[in-house]
Amino acid sequence: MKVKVVSKILEANDRIALDNRKLFDAAGVFVINLMSGPGAGKTSLLEKTVSQVSGLKIGVIEGDICGSDDAERVGSLNVPVVQINTGGACHLDANMISEVLADVPLDQLDLLFIENVGNLVCPAEFKVGEDIKVMILSIAEGHDKPLKYPLMFQESSALVLNKTDLAPYVDVDIGKIKRDALSLNPGIKIFEVSCKTGQGIPEWIGWLKERARKN
Amino acid sequence: MKVKVVSKILEANDRIALDNRKLFDAAGVFVINLMSGPGAGKTSLLEKTVSQVSGLKIGVIEGDICGSDDAERVGSLNVPVVQINTGGACHLDANMISEVLADVPLDQLDLLFIENVGNLVCPAEFKVGEDIKVMILSIAEGHDKPLKYPLMFQESSALVLNKTDLAPYVDVDIGKIKRDALSLNPGIKIFEVSCKTGQGIPEWIGWLKERARKN
Repeated sequence: MKVKVVSKILEANDRIALDNRKLFDAAGVFVINLMSGPGAGKTSLLEKTVSQVSGLKIGVIEGDICGSDDAERVGSLNVPVVQINTGGACHLDANMISEVLADVPLDQLDLLFIENVGNLVCPAEFKVGEDIKVMILSIAEGHDKPLKYPLMFQESSALVLNKTDLAPYVDVDIGKIKRDALSLNPGIKIFEVSCKTGQGIPEWIGWLKERARKN
Repeated sequence: MKVKVVSKILEANDRIALDNRKLFDAAGVFVINLMSGPGAGKTSLLEKTVSQVSGLKIGVIEGDICGSDDAERVGSLNVPVVQINTGGACHLDANMISEVLADVPLDQLDLLFIENVGNLVCPAEFKVGEDIKVMILSIAEGHDKPLKYPLMFQESSALVLNKTDLAPYVDVDIGKIKRDALSLNPGIKIFEVSCKTGQGIPEWIGWLKERARKN
């Protein structure tokens, strides 16, 4: 019975996600569902990306259980931002996105980031209408994460390994993270970045522009 | 309709949690539901606790989506460990615990840790029969976490701030974490620890023994 309920929720979600996707495609906007556990650096990566990218008009939908800290951080960089408060829900779903799309100036954008709630599990199960999913892992979370939380690694087109500046101070085998992520998802593109020092950000932005252009 | 379903699930869960709790109380075991986001250090804190505590017989139930890495790490310290694989579920619930209790030697224990799935959101919603909830936050996750993920801070009797050894290398205001956690939950007991250096572990163990003894 429990499985049936979940399955119906997911089917309904997928239908709304498809509707969202049609609107994104009609407007020519490339959409990225950005996911990670709490504090891995989603908002920091958005800040770096928005401030360093050229030639791409970017918009952001921020998803948080409550508050608007992230929207204020990104909005201060003069990009259109809409904040969703999930009111307790641990992930964004397609309906939440659908409900705010009237407030997103799709016709003026090339690229829309949807920053999900910080959670390494549930967001990977719910499509929101995105072209691709991208995930971030802070290397401070440890090298056992791909095999313990496989779905997000399997669903993501890219894995951004953030906080590489902490490598000398944490006991982490970055090679193992990369090997395990690739074993789960041989096509995943991996970036090693530090949003603090800026290391790796140009490579990430280069890939992003290439993906958005293919749209 | 969606709310009704969730509410029924939570009611059913609470009934089973109460049954679990009766078994724990009958055996005189103090039970801690240990929660955090991914990679904050739940298993590391258990390793430190088990290896340094004296005068308390400890058992562990490990909850992971898949795999048995954590159970092997803790089991190597010669404490009874049972691994639960949730098969995708993002939290432990009371029924999952109920199903493995026959494999836990309750009569031989003073203290049982239930290590939840790494997730800063959903585990806080589901009682499993514990006496208290304890949460861990890695300071590398950033100081905005209490206000963005309030429920877990509100539900926990103690907050273990881990990875304090990283303080010189991350931009984090530990004072703000403590102030915000206390504003959400004035009774929460806060420990600053480093499972890497051992800093703060004796204070944590002292509190733990006091709480378990009051049982």
